[in-house]
Amino acid sequence: MTIAAQIQHKIDFKTKPLGALGMLEKLALQIGTVQNTLSPTLTKPAIVVFAADHGIATSGVSAYPQEVTFQMVMNFLAGGAAINVFSKQHNINLKVVDAGVNFDFEPNLYQNQHLINAKIAHGTQNFLTQKAMTQTQLEQCFQASKNIVDDLANDGCNVVGFGEMGIGNTSAATLIMSNLCHLPIEKCVGRGTGLNDAQLQNKIEILTKAQSFHGNITDPKEVLKTFGGFEIAQMCGAILAAFDKNMVVLVDGFIASAAFLVAYEINKKVIDNAVFCHLSDEFGHQNLLNYLNAEPILKLNMRLGEGTGCAVAYPIMVSAVAFLNNMASFESAGVSNK
Amino acid sequence: MTIAAQIQHKIDFKTKPLGALGMLEKLALQIGTVQNTLSPTLTKPAIVVFAADHGIATSGVSAYPQEVTFQMVMNFLAGGAAINVFSKQHNINLKVVDAGVNFDFEPNLYQNQHLINAKIAHGTQNFLTQKAMTQTQLEQCFQASKNIVDDLANDGCNVVGFGEMGIGNTSAATLIMSNLCHLPIEKCVGRGTGLNDAQLQNKIEILTKAQSFHGNITDPKEVLKTFGGFEIAQMCGAILAAFDKNMVVLVDGFIASAAFLVAYEINKKVIDNAVFCHLSDEFGHQNLLNYLNAEPILKLNMRLGEGTGCAVAYPIMVSAVAFLNNMASFESAGVSNK
Repeated sequence: MTIAAQIQHKIDFKTKPLGALGMLEKLALQIGTVQNTLSPTLTKPAIVVFAADHGIATSGVSAYPQEVTFQMVMNFLAGGAAINVFSKQHNINLKVVDAGVNFDFEPNLYQNQHLINAKIAHGTQNFLTQKAMTQTQLEQCFQASKNIVDDLANDGCNVVGFGEMGIGNTSAATLIMSNLCHLPIEKCVGRGTGLNDAQLQNKIEILTKAQSFHGNITDPKEVLKTFGGFEIAQMCGAILAAFDKNMVVLVDGFIASAAFLVAYEINKKVIDNAVFCHLSDEFGHQNLLNYLNAEPILKLNMRLGEGTGCAVAYPIMVSAVAFLNNMASFESAGVSNK
Repeated sequence: MTIAAQIQHKIDFKTKPLGALGMLEKLALQIGTVQNTLSPTLTKPAIVVFAADHGIATSGVSAYPQEVTFQMVMNFLAGGAAINVFSKQHNINLKVVDAGVNFDFEPNLYQNQHLINAKIAHGTQNFLTQKAMTQTQLEQCFQASKNIVDDLANDGCNVVGFGEMGIGNTSAATLIMSNLCHLPIEKCVGRGTGLNDAQLQNKIEILTKAQSFHGNITDPKEVLKTFGGFEIAQMCGAILAAFDKNMVVLVDGFIASAAFLVAYEINKKVIDNAVFCHLSDEFGHQNLLNYLNAEPILKLNMRLGEGTGCAVAYPIMVSAVAFLNNMASFESAGVSNK
């Protein structure tokens, strides 16, 4: 009997009607299968937030100015952001990474990895007129995030989520999705941090121009390089590295899913370890999850990024593992089965 | 400015795009408004599971035999059921109530309120041929559950969920819903613990017979008395009592929502304090939530009862309160607003 079949048998003989724990049962089966055990555990959960700036941000695609990226990094470091609050609630180890913020942080902030220094450059190039990053920069992104994930794994972490901060990054994610899913921009784009109708129309026009400038690109790494985001590239590398360490990978909202999409096109097997934490309110996310045939845990109309969907969904995963490990069976409890 | 407007203002100036925490923002607003404060707290959370038997259970409406009710009560007391696991995970104070189980528990089980003794009788009458309970029994149910809730409130609990166990109780809940929502049985009925198509058809025929035997009843207490469930009546009384104590009331799945429906028809204001924790996979639940215009937190295809939806959703409520209390504002964090 395969491990999956053994786990399913264990689930089916818990004191509850068959299938009555719904998605918790699917999660328990998945996590047990990933860990190849009837008694899975989630140890030292971590969320890594990658922050970076985007050349496209200066072209009027976001409701917020670019300096919000570094200001929010400072907010993460001070403990005042949503991801701080939710990580603390669930004892999740939160790491903040400068993947390429357009700001010179005080060097002492990098000490003791308070802010992890994986800065590739002061933001990407504007993809309206050139590729967002070079091949070398892409490789630096993959190496830097692999190092971060390997450190977590070596420390005993077996479940990790990835979040992001970067004004303009829904634009990058939209073009990555459009190119790799072969869907028109209109099916991939959304209001980001809160565009009105006219601003959204303007964003679509800018992204259409950029897409046509670069022509038809379908190779996943080439797409990533073209539309970038150092934080998106580092998330992608981190997902691949976490899979290599057989960790459970928590996928957050729209941008994280776009990073996952690139990882998936590089190695389809990453989906075995992926838990899609929530459906973002950002318009394109539902279509992206459909493309990945992914069922998210939560549908709370959140659209904040930072890994907040991972953190808020995390206790549901703990519930899944807990029922599998700790509920009585019909036999042990002396309860009549059907 | 009303307290609701003040809370909304506080929410809107947290360091996140407007509305970006979706349902968490709605929950924070609701809980703050109930508690009339900008800094709400959830203290000593409790879940009370009411167990009772149903006369109708002997007529072939359930996939499981009636003895499963008492066996599951023993499982609750031993800590082996799903609700035990999830309550423990979230430090929720779990209370188990014998509201009318058809079994003589050892008297020592009632000592120190290990199992709360609120036994009205050894199960209700079969509503195929008579009312499930008498007026006196209904009043006993309301008094008993009020006492339980008052004790919790006096102990400092300000958030409480209600669960149930009772073989046959989806049948009782279906008829309560059908009568009070003025919906045909087909829109209210479901597979309960797992009926197949033929068994479901049989359940519908039995319930149709019962409904036509009793004629058109619309008074909420009369409906409750007629189709009963001592556990459903005690849940209904508990909801009304918790509202009187200004507690936040967690509503679980189909049967809990039917109990809530009766409470709502008695006092429409209870909905202000109610949080609908999840959409059950039991077919009628979506229609019942639609009737109540209620948006559930979770949609996990669960259909277990016991209050499990309340427990699994509880950390989401904690997240809602936590962001309201602990996130920085744009001003305090020095982040640029739009």
